[in-house]
Amino acid sequence: MTGALGLPRSIRLREVSLRDGLQIEAPMPTSAKLELLDALVAAGLRRIEATAFVSPSAVPALADAAEVAAHLSEYQGVEFSALVASPGGARRAVDAGVTSLEYVVSASDGHSRANAGRASAEALARVADVAGIVNRAGGRTEVIVAVAWDCPFDGPTPPEAVVSLARRAVESGAERLCLGDTIGTVTPGRMADLVAAVRQACPTTPLGVHLHDTRGMGMATALAAMQLGVLDLDASIGGLGGCPFAPGASGNIATEELAYLCREVGVETGTDLAALLEAVALAERIVGRPLESRLLRAGDRRRD
Amino acid sequence: MTGALGLPRSIRLREVSLRDGLQIEAPMPTSAKLELLDALVAAGLRRIEATAFVSPSAVPALADAAEVAAHLSEYQGVEFSALVASPGGARRAVDAGVTSLEYVVSASDGHSRANAGRASAEALARVADVAGIVNRAGGRTEVIVAVAWDCPFDGPTPPEAVVSLARRAVESGAERLCLGDTIGTVTPGRMADLVAAVRQACPTTPLGVHLHDTRGMGMATALAAMQLGVLDLDASIGGLGGCPFAPGASGNIATEELAYLCREVGVETGTDLAALLEAVALAERIVGRPLESRLLRAGDRRRD
Repeated sequence: MTGALGLPRSIRLREVSLRDGLQIEAPMPTSAKLELLDALVAAGLRRIEATAFVSPSAVPALADAAEVAAHLSEYQGVEFSALVASPGGARRAVDAGVTSLEYVVSASDGHSRANAGRASAEALARVADVAGIVNRAGGRTEVIVAVAWDCPFDGPTPPEAVVSLARRAVESGAERLCLGDTIGTVTPGRMADLVAAVRQACPTTPLGVHLHDTRGMGMATALAAMQLGVLDLDASIGGLGGCPFAPGASGNIATEELAYLCREVGVETGTDLAALLEAVALAERIVGRPLESRLLRAGDRRRD
Repeated sequence: MTGALGLPRSIRLREVSLRDGLQIEAPMPTSAKLELLDALVAAGLRRIEATAFVSPSAVPALADAAEVAAHLSEYQGVEFSALVASPGGARRAVDAGVTSLEYVVSASDGHSRANAGRASAEALARVADVAGIVNRAGGRTEVIVAVAWDCPFDGPTPPEAVVSLARRAVESGAERLCLGDTIGTVTPGRMADLVAAVRQACPTTPLGVHLHDTRGMGMATALAAMQLGVLDLDASIGGLGGCPFAPGASGNIATEELAYLCREVGVETGTDLAALLEAVALAERIVGRPLESRLLRAGDRRRD
C-alpha cells in the first residue's frame, strides 16, 4: 500500500506537548503535567520532550522543570529530553538528570533576540558549550533551528542561513538537527527544498522536523517530509502549542492526527490511537478548553 | 521544486460550494448565491458545480436551481455543471440549459436509499438514461461514486463494488468518474489503492476525487491524489459543505487551502489566492457564521 506513495516503514514521533504545548499556557500544577505524561506514555509514545530549562520569568509555565525531571525515571523505555536556550539551561537540565537536550538556535536575528535575548550568531557560538556540558554527562545534543522557513520579525529566512547554521552546529557538537517551522508557514515544496539543502551540508546527521498547523498544511507537509525520508517528527497532543515569542504562531501538528495518518498509510509509530484520543480529552480538561482536534470530534473511522 | 514530490504541473479545481456547500444550509436568496458566484469567478475558478436539480422538498436550499442556471450564461469561459440524482433531474437541468452533469451513484445500498431513494444497482441502471438525455443535449455525464470508501450506514465499502460500479457506469455512457469521500474517511493509502483499482478497470476515463476534511486529513490526501496523477479535484470555498443524507459528514476540503497548497508546490490552479480569501469572507457573511478556514484566520504567508 505504501509503495505508491514512497513512505518509510516507521517514524520516530516525538511528543512535545509538555514543552511546546504548555509553554504558552497558564502555569499548572506539576501533578497535572504528570497525569498527562502518564496518558502519553500509556498511548505508546516513546520519545517525549518533557520540559524546558529556560528562564522561569520568561516561561512561567515551565518553571517546574526540575520537579518534572525528578519523576522521569519512573517511566521505563521512554527517551526523555528537554529544551534549553543557553549553556546555563543545559547545566540545570543535566543537574536535574536530563541529558538528551534540544538547544534552540533561531535562524534569524529578530526571533533569536526575542526568544533567547541574543543574536543568531551568538546563540550559535554557544552550541559547543552546550554540547560540552551534555557530552560530559553522557548525553546527546540536538540543535533545533527555529524560524527555519520564516521569521515573524525578519520575514523569509534565506535557506543559506539555515544551511550554514546547521553545518556550524554539527561542527560544534550537535548530533541531531531539527528544522523548526515556528510560525506554521512551511508547505511540502519548501520542505523538500530545505531538507535537500541541509542534507547536502550535513549528510550523516539525523534530521527531524517540527511543524505547526497554522494554515491547515500540517498533515500534507508531514506526509511530504516522510516521503523525503524524514523519520523524526515532532507533534503535540491535541495540537497544543505555540511560541510565546513569535507573533502569529499557533498549535503544533496534532499527535493523534499524525498517528492516524501514519496508521492509515502503514507507517509504524508504535502508538495506540484510542489511547491517544483519550490523552487529547485529558489535555482538554487540563487546559480547560476544547482543542482544535478534528479527529477527536469526528472519531477514528474504524469504530471497532 | 516539485520534482522531489512527484506532482503534476497543474490540476483542474472544481468549486462545489454552490451545490455541496449550500445544500445543508438554510435556503437563501438566489441573489446571495450569485454574489458568491461572482466572487468565485473573480478568483479565477473556471469549473464550477453551480447547483443540483434534485427534489426541492429533500434539498430546499437548492430549489432555485433553474433560477441560478438562468444566470450562468453571463459568465464567460467558465465550465458550469450541475448535480442530478435521476433522469428526471437530468431533464430539468438540460431544460434549464445546463448540460454538464454529475450523476451520483452511491456504492452502498444504505447511502443510495437515503440519498436517492433506491438501491445502488437501481441508481446505476439509470446512468444510461441520464447519459442519453445529456448526449442529446450535446453535454457530458460524469458519475460521482458516493461513499466510495465508507458508508455511514453500511460500513467500509468493498473496493470491488466501486470498481464494478465504475466499469458499468463507463459502459453506460459516463465520460468522467469521480470518487466521493462522502464522510471524510479516506486517507492517502486508501486513496492510492482505490485510484489504482479504478484506473485499471477504466484506464481511459478521467478520474477525479471529492474529499471532505472531517478528520484533518484533507490536504494530505489531496497531495497524495495529485502525486498519483489525479488532476480533477473538488473543493468548496471556506470548507463549506456536507451531505444531508450522511450522518457524520462535514465540510469539503477548502478551496483556498487546496489553492494555497498548490501554489506552494508549484501546481497551477489558475486561481488568485487573495481573491479566494475574499470569497471565503463573503461566504461567511452569506451563511452567517465563521467557517473553519485556518488559512483565512492566519492569512497567506506572503504578506505582499
